[in-house]
Parts: sequence; C-alpha cells; structure tokens
Amino acid sequence: MEKIRKIILSENEMPRQWYNILADMPNKPMPPLHPGTKQPIGPEDLAAVFPMELIKQEVSTERYIDIPEEVLDLYRTYRPSPLFRAISLEKTLGTKSKIYYKYEGGNYSGSHKANTAIPQAYYNKQEGVRRITTETGAGQWGSAMSFACNYFGLELLVFMVRVSYDNKPGRKLLMNTYNAKVLASPSTMTVFGRKVLEQDPNSPGSLGIAISEAMEVASQDPYTKYALGSVLNHVSLHQTIIGQEALIQMEKTGDYPDVVIGCFGGGSNFSGIAFPFLREKLLHKKDIRLVAVEPASCPKLTKGKFMYDFGDSAGMTPLLPMFTLGHNYIPEKIHAGGLRYHGAGVIVSQLLKDGLIEAKAKLQRECFEAGVLFARNEGILPAPESTYAIAGAMDEARRADIEGVSKTILFNLSGHGHFDISAYEKYFENNLPDHELSTAEIEDAISKIDITV
Amino acid sequence: MEKIRKIILSENEMPRQWYNILADMPNKPMPPLHPGTKQPIGPEDLAAVFPMELIKQEVSTERYIDIPEEVLDLYRTYRPSPLFRAISLEKTLGTKSKIYYKYEGGNYSGSHKANTAIPQAYYNKQEGVRRITTETGAGQWGSAMSFACNYFGLELLVFMVRVSYDNKPGRKLLMNTYNAKVLASPSTMTVFGRKVLEQDPNSPGSLGIAISEAMEVASQDPYTKYALGSVLNHVSLHQTIIGQEALIQMEKTGDYPDVVIGCFGGGSNFSGIAFPFLREKLLHKKDIRLVAVEPASCPKLTKGKFMYDFGDSAGMTPLLPMFTLGHNYIPEKIHAGGLRYHGAGVIVSQLLKDGLIEAKAKLQRECFEAGVLFARNEGILPAPESTYAIAGAMDEARRADIEGVSKTILFNLSGHGHFDISAYEKYFENNLPDHELSTAEIEDAISKIDITV
Repeated sequence: MEKIRKIILSENEMPRQWYNILADMPNKPMPPLHPGTKQPIGPEDLAAVFPMELIKQEVSTERYIDIPEEVLDLYRTYRPSPLFRAISLEKTLGTKSKIYYKYEGGNYSGSHKANTAIPQAYYNKQEGVRRITTETGAGQWGSAMSFACNYFGLELLVFMVRVSYDNKPGRKLLMNTYNAKVLASPSTMTVFGRKVLEQDPNSPGSLGIAISEAMEVASQDPYTKYALGSVLNHVSLHQTIIGQEALIQMEKTGDYPDVVIGCFGGGSNFSGIAFPFLREKLLHKKDIRLVAVEPASCPKLTKGKFMYDFGDSAGMTPLLPMFTLGHNYIPEKIHAGGLRYHGAGVIVSQLLKDGLIEAKAKLQRECFEAGVLFARNEGILPAPESTYAIAGAMDEARRADIEGVSKTILFNLSGHGHFDISAYEKYFENNLPDHELSTAEIEDAISKIDITV
Repeated sequence: MEKIRKIILSENEMPRQWYNILADMPNKPMPPLHPGTKQPIGPEDLAAVFPMELIKQEVSTERYIDIPEEVLDLYRTYRPSPLFRAISLEKTLGTKSKIYYKYEGGNYSGSHKANTAIPQAYYNKQEGVRRITTETGAGQWGSAMSFACNYFGLELLVFMVRVSYDNKPGRKLLMNTYNAKVLASPSTMTVFGRKVLEQDPNSPGSLGIAISEAMEVASQDPYTKYALGSVLNHVSLHQTIIGQEALIQMEKTGDYPDVVIGCFGGGSNFSGIAFPFLREKLLHKKDIRLVAVEPASCPKLTKGKFMYDFGDSAGMTPLLPMFTLGHNYIPEKIHAGGLRYHGAGVIVSQLLKDGLIEAKAKLQRECFEAGVLFARNEGILPAPESTYAIAGAMDEARRADIEGVSKTILFNLSGHGHFDISAYEKYFENNLPDHELSTAEIEDAISKIDITV
C-alpha cells in the first residue's frame, strides 16, 4: 500500500483569516515602553515608521483578523502550500515515528517571508506610502519584500547584513531583479551606519544594525515607512496562515502532531506554524509540544535573559520585554543568517516564560548534516535556517525510538537553500565552524547594555 | 470578480500513462542507422548503453505506456504541477489575450528534467545497473539525475559542459549535495575529451562533447549505462506528463489554447507540453499551433539542415535523421546552456518537416528582458532557457493585439533561474551579447561533417 507523500489543499480551503494568539494567551505580554519616558507606548509612537493598519494589528486582541482580498489574491499564486510526509527520510532513519513537514519555500521568495511581505506592502500602499526601507539577513525577507513592493508600486531600499551581502550575492541579485535597491549594512548612508563603521571598519553587520539603519532612513521622510520581517506581533500574525493550513492538512492525514517544530531567529516562522496548534492546546486541551530550535551561537531562548531591551542596535525601537542576548551583541557569522538576531519576539518570550513552548539550541554542523540527509531523501535542498528544524525533528524521532514509542512530528520547512549552496560547499569541505555561546560571553554581552525601567 | 491564478490537480487526477506520439504521426520518422553499416539499428545496438526497457520505449508505437508505480510514487512528491494564468503579466502587457503557463520548476531539480530522470534511474536499477554516466549543460538535467540516482541506489558521474561548470558553480554543488560526481567536459578522463583538449585547451565544451565522454565511459563497463536528458524518443515520452496534465487543467479553466509554446534545446520540454495537444490536433482536428522557440545562436530548427547526423561530437551515437547544425558545431556561450545543442530529436524534426509544428529563433537579450518582466509580474524567476518560451508567448500576445483579436496562449515554464542569477546580473550590466548564426556559418559547420547514407 502506498503511503501519502503530500496533502494539497484547494484554493477554496485556504484560510481567509489570520489567527491572533494575543486573544488566547493566559498571561498577556508586558507593554512595549517608550525609551525616553519608560511609559507604555501608544499607536502614535509607532506612526512615524509603520502604517496605521499594521499598528492596529500589532496591538489587537481580536482572535481572528480578516485577510484583505488583494492579499488573498496574491497568496493564491503559491498558497495553500503543500504538507509533505517525509516517508523517504523516515525509512532512511528507520524510525517508527511519522515525520510531516509544511513546505514554505515554494513561492517566489523561497521562504515563508512572502506571507507577511505581501500584506505589509499592501497596507503601506493603501495608506499612501511611496517607499519602504527594511533590513535583511540571509536575504529571504528582502527578496520577499522586493517583489511585493514592486507589485504594489512601492520603492524598496534594503539594508542587507554585510556578511550575507558578501557571501550570498545571489540574493542581492534576486532583489535587484525584483527592482529593489540593496546596500550592505553597516553602510555609509546613515548616521548610525557610519558610527558602527568608525568603530569597526570590518564589521560583519547584524540584523540589529541593519534595522537601525532602515529605521533611521524611514523616520526622515513622511512618505517612507519601515517594514520588519520578524519579531513583531503583526508579522507573526500574518505567518499563522502556515499553521492554519497545516491544521486542516493534518486532519486529512488522520494523524495529529505530538510535537510541532520550527527554527528560530526572531520568531516568525516558528510562530506561524506553532500558534494555531497552541490555540488547540490552550482552548481544547490538545496534548502537544511546541519546540523552537535556535543556533547555539545565538541562543537567546535557551541562554538569554528575559528583560526589556531594544529591537535594534542603535536603540531606536521601543523597549520590548523579551529574551535577549543584548541589543549590541553581534552573533558569529553562521550560515543561517536569518537566525542571527539578538532577541525573541515579545509573544514568544512570554509563552516561553510561561512554559507553554519549549526551546533548544543546536550547532550548525549537525544541522547541515541533517539538511544533506533530508535533501538526499526528500529532494528539497533546505535553507540553512530550516536545517535547524530538520535536526530538531530528527532528534524527536530518535528519542521516540529510544523510548520505544511512535510519535507524529510536524516541522516547518521554512525555505529552500538554492541561494545558500556555498554554505553546503563549506560543509562538505569540513570548513564549517561550530560556535557555542558561553554563559560568560552572554553575561558580558548583556552587561554592555544599560537599561532600567 | 477575481480571476483564477492557478489550477491545481489532486494526485488522483495525475495521469498514469505517458503519451507516445509515434502512434499518431502521419509520417513516421526514418530509422536511426548504424554508423558503420548504414543499416537501421536494432535494439541490440543500443543495449551496451541503455537498459532494455528504455530501448523498448524508444521504438514503441503503443499510444499509451503505463508509468510504473515506483515512478508515480516519486512523481507525487511534486506532481501534478500547477498551471498558472499570468494575470499580472497580461495586465502589464495590456493584452486582450489570455496567457497561461505550466510551471515545471517546482521540484527538487528545478526543471522538467525530473520527469524523465526518475523513470530512467528506475529502469536502470531494475535491470541491475550500478552506475550511470550522463552529460549536463546548464546543470538542470544533471541535478535531476543526481537525486534520482541516489534515491534508487545508483552511482552517477556527470560530464558538465565546461562553460556552465565555470559559470554555474551552484549547479555543480547541488549535484554534489545529491551525491553525484561532476567533471568539467571536455575532461582528461576520456580518450575523446583528451583529443578535444589537445585541439583546443580552452574549449568551452558542448553538449555533443559531453555526450561523447559519458558514452565512452558507459561503453567500457557492463554495469555502467548512459542516460540522455533530451533528444531521444523515450525522453520526450516521459515528458508528455506535462501536456497530459495541462490538457486536464486547461479544460478546468474553460479555455482552450490557440497556441502552445516551449523553448527548444534538444526538444524534451517542448515535446512534453506540445505532443498531447498535437494529438488533439491530429485525432480531433483541434485548431491549435505548436511553436518551438530556439536561440538565434543555435538555430537548428529554423536554419539547420534536415539530414542524418550524429547526436554527439565524437560520432558514437547512431546516425539520426534530424535538423542539425552539424555534430561538431560548438554554439556560442549563451546563458541558456540547456539550449546549446546542435540537433533536434527525430520526432520533432519529422513533425517540423511535415509542417505540424512551427519554430522560431530569438536573441538572448530580448528573452532576458521578457524574463525580468515576467519575474516582476508573476514572481517566479525563470531559467534562462525558459525565457525563450516567455518571449515567444509575449510575441503571440502582441501579434494578436495588433490583429485585434484575443488568443489563448499556453507556454511551458520549464524551470526556475535560482542557479542562473549571475546571467541576470550580466543582463542588468548590459553585458549580454546577442549572437545570430549566419547562413554562411551554418553552411561552414555542416560542411565539416562527412556523412553519406
């Protein structure tokens, strides 16, 4: 009897609402604070850099938020996305468990980032914005915004983290092809970029620095707004279409996941797949674990400190209550550039604090090993970021086999690695260092910031 | 009212048979000839390099051939493939016509090549083969075979055309990731490769040379066979799953194509989409045009000579009746490496001779321009090869608008360009030469071969 390889939904089955977990959290996150007054910020404090509709979504406690027709229309170019059962990988592992993955790399951007790029560009256009600035790490978010902005008739300026800009020229060229301007960050275009370069002319950059640069430019022009690809509530909200679809697809398989896994940078792809399942846990007492897998070189969830910190390096954002390594921390140059962020989104941070989700950290070599095994069995070449989720899923399968049980494991394969192939080359050349951040280094990084609230 | 963006079929709707146009051709192709005796070859002449099941398919005149269960199983990892309506592109062009495209880039190999790589690997494995040798141009076919061979437990040795090997390191690395060995061709591994290098140490290579090298290695070991990614009948046969699906999908749109378009290298992706529609034309008098679009730098269909010629540079293959530029012709180094082949498959050649299909040649700059416009509107970054089909479709739409009519246009988007992004860079840098092969050059190329049958 042949096993099912994939579950495809029709366009009619695509969810027409995003799910907002703020409605169902037992403990709501603490409010973002104004860095000057240390008082909770209001919508007007964000209006300089974000359009009002996204600010409303950022603070909304409505459980479901309608997806605009124009966004649904563009979602339909690639959604619903497929859910696969990894039957070849299962066989090779010899596991008794079932491994499923939701694949978000099959769209123009090659990752889940399109899911929030499209609505963000749309809402900005609706409110008369002409230009967007943003940051990008590995380039997935920048690619996603490039097409979306061009589609809706917006200009886009991308600050791309220097180390990725140098190592992943393909992503830069893709953004150019979609009509975006791309600068290496730190750049000489901004006051903050120049300051960083003064201190370290060879700075590899970080997402925190790139965010500061993009925000600086956006804050100087009323027709320019800023867009963020992860961390914020409205970004996670848009990504919940992943989990909403996966719930319908898992139901069609007749299985239900014991554990749902996502890799973790700022939190958006993990939130996207996990929050709808967490709703089932919270509201319908489903017995399910939700596991975020982060790099050992950037372990904010497993070793960071829960505190108020800035989302960017320059300290331009509101103060956010989150697990952080300190907003000045510059992570090692691992190849999963999208996971090189110092902090975790406020919702995920609160959920972790409350024990509703789990986190684990992994070294990059083991993740690439898992990625290669996956590619040779399932065909899809995973993004370096996504290999952390694969390695996490394989850990769960191995543990279940040791315990002599069969689990149903679901992970989010957040993107493909076509533009990251040089990282695989380094893996095969045995030229991929493992970095594990020590407690002393973390204490040092956090001691460098001086925030009292 | 929202327009349909894509038509997805369920796995149950996936065709379970390939369509063999040899059954329905009004004039059958002339037979392949043994290069020594000049007599029609028999199955035994091919047995040294191909497994018997593929030889049977090569000469079969059965209208439909069952797809093995194991092949269907792996097809299901990515098939049925989507059919899109290019509504954003239509809007930007301001055309009255409807443009549809079948997208074959959404699988592990990034192109239609997986459709024949999987059955070829399967049949070889079934017959006890241990190792496969093959050629690859741009690397799509090599990538497709790499995963398929590894999946079925076969070793793979790929001779990659030098110019692509140097310009597309990503494709080489992808093949390595799927566990294949890749050599630049001409190589020093074979007698023929050494001979070519002696004459021209800087030879950019060609598909013809790479085929000779791969066949030379295969012919020396009973457990090693050779696999070809285009040109041959069984390859086109496997690709007909594209058109078989497209027929069902077009029916669901309520439209019927006036013209079906594919880019043209050796003929496999064009045949794949066109033959099932040609069947409808031949058997059910459907009024439909089938157009192959080739590069002006390698115009075998539009300017080549119909004659018996070799499929490879060394003259190891049988003599094939085909449109050719001469088997020693080394095409200019255009970026659509998959279209740099001197000849056309025998079925396509006969159909063109009989006026049942059409051909046109285009310059690469215009095709890249079409590709960029497509990417900015539809999102998908096309392979350089596929841009020829896009440009061909845009020509049809423009012509219909000039004539004041609305046509339904269907083209095959054979693959994505993620590993070809440096070619787009050259396009933006205005560093993409246009080559048009002159009649004198063609006569010269053909005069260099000495074949009498």
